[in-house]
Amino acid sequence: MANIRDVAKEAGVSVATVSRYLNKKGYVGQKSAAKIEQAIQKLNYKPSLVARSLSTKQTHYIGLIVPDITNPFFPELARAVEDIALTYGYTVVLCNSDGNPEKELHYIDTLQQKYIAGFIITTSSLDAHHYENLTIPIVALDRKIEGPLPTVSSQNKEGAKVGTNHLIERGCKNVICLRGPKGVGPADERLAGFIEAVQDTSIQTEIIECSFQFDVAERIVKKALLGNPKIDGIFASSDVSAAGALKAAHALDLHVPNDLQIIGFDNVSLSEMTTPGLTTIAQDIYKMGAVAARMLIKTIENLPLEEKKVQIPVELIQRGTTRSEKI
Amino acid sequence: MANIRDVAKEAGVSVATVSRYLNKKGYVGQKSAAKIEQAIQKLNYKPSLVARSLSTKQTHYIGLIVPDITNPFFPELARAVEDIALTYGYTVVLCNSDGNPEKELHYIDTLQQKYIAGFIITTSSLDAHHYENLTIPIVALDRKIEGPLPTVSSQNKEGAKVGTNHLIERGCKNVICLRGPKGVGPADERLAGFIEAVQDTSIQTEIIECSFQFDVAERIVKKALLGNPKIDGIFASSDVSAAGALKAAHALDLHVPNDLQIIGFDNVSLSEMTTPGLTTIAQDIYKMGAVAARMLIKTIENLPLEEKKVQIPVELIQRGTTRSEKI
Repeated sequence: MANIRDVAKEAGVSVATVSRYLNKKGYVGQKSAAKIEQAIQKLNYKPSLVARSLSTKQTHYIGLIVPDITNPFFPELARAVEDIALTYGYTVVLCNSDGNPEKELHYIDTLQQKYIAGFIITTSSLDAHHYENLTIPIVALDRKIEGPLPTVSSQNKEGAKVGTNHLIERGCKNVICLRGPKGVGPADERLAGFIEAVQDTSIQTEIIECSFQFDVAERIVKKALLGNPKIDGIFASSDVSAAGALKAAHALDLHVPNDLQIIGFDNVSLSEMTTPGLTTIAQDIYKMGAVAARMLIKTIENLPLEEKKVQIPVELIQRGTTRSEKI
Repeated sequence: MANIRDVAKEAGVSVATVSRYLNKKGYVGQKSAAKIEQAIQKLNYKPSLVARSLSTKQTHYIGLIVPDITNPFFPELARAVEDIALTYGYTVVLCNSDGNPEKELHYIDTLQQKYIAGFIITTSSLDAHHYENLTIPIVALDRKIEGPLPTVSSQNKEGAKVGTNHLIERGCKNVICLRGPKGVGPADERLAGFIEAVQDTSIQTEIIECSFQFDVAERIVKKALLGNPKIDGIFASSDVSAAGALKAAHALDLHVPNDLQIIGFDNVSLSEMTTPGLTTIAQDIYKMGAVAARMLIKTIENLPLEEKKVQIPVELIQRGTTRSEKI
């Protein structure tokens, strides 16, 4: 494979001139530029991006830190980030943090040494000041991080209110809120929306903390339903937990939606695969990923951001786990 | 941040000596080594991995090319690859090829310029000779690629035979085989296993090509069931298509497994989320990813491979879409 020296020799200029030409830094005469371009074509020279990254400190790698790519929300997000990155000539490094602050720090540390161009973070395991001390661009996604970081999130609170009202309008009197893990931004916001919707009503409620895991939700809901046969509605903070709740209802021979109505959150592809399909508050996951990727790349390339805190609208999608008509 | 010159100055040696020490190449006296180590500690110097990759041509990035990360098989695979990579100090670059040869070539080309250390490919969109001409390590995963490439795959044919026999033993007389896309290695192998299991029996069969997509499978199966009410068994080449078949059966008010039995392939997490849960041929997806990552890293580091073609065993997992007893 031809290297920069071969190009310089072929073009009859110095290596430094070729380097200035490739990195678009410093003066290169028109004639020299033309000769270099010809040499590049003739030798089929492909500039080493690693070598260039040393002078420009630009690798065009961006890091995507997710808690766990096997949680169905994150592949859809990763897909969007990768699609946009590809369009702009960036490639995506995938990191599973498991919500472990040490693991997240390890990634940020190691990848900075590889001159990663920026990060999209979807975890809130580190304190805000960790991010603020970093000198490279970061966009926070689906996790509220206080402070000046650019952030993309969904209308979590508003969505939870809409979802809870949907249950109330369809006759639910005893509703469980399967809130997600405490301290996780979207889970806290959805809980706040649920609480706002039920206050000043006569609805009986129980709030249960439940991780975004299918089997955990299934177990918790089974126990709750056995403990209180009056429960007739479940607001779940994710589709995965809603699917677990649905499975628990089936195991107890409860008819969904006649005996029990369930609403999820996210609209991951799983939500149409269950029978009945899950009524859910749909996030535009692809758009969230795409907007975050564009914001990050703009920041990397020193372009101005129109907005630093973007909220993506949500919408209710009705399938079979809630009654078709209000009562 | 301290750079290599600062370390050399602090240690009282030349930059070249520090470079030899860091890259473990060439002679460095014991005393100098000790001084360099002290200087590194004192200055909290972190060698730039990009700079090092220029001399060693090692970035410790590995590329994982998947058709589409939102297909539930691939996040589980990606997770395993990333876990193992992390253990060995590698990071994973995620590429969605959409089974598009041009896109795959673009990735291979671009990432080679960034001195990517190797690739795990899970697509067969390129002809074998494309891979053979590459000078960097490649491991093929879940896709049979002829020739000398190291390969990790599942016992697809054996698994399909076990799955089909499971349907026959439970009384199925009219069985649809939802084969995956033609030309995709595992899909072809599973079809071969199905055909071997039904030959020399009186079972009526129909083989239908069907992509590994939920909605496509749902539509195809609905049409097939309406066209032939005698169908009492479906062998699906993936869990996603089996879930589509199950949804179609529910839409037609068929009882699964009494009226219709269904078996899938993969054992992705979706398979326990449906009601009834999917009987399936389980691949050890995590192990496939982990073995492939270890093979790739060994190849990158010039360590010998014990085996170049690894087949991971599969096993039948019975859930609710087939009858509990043989008849």
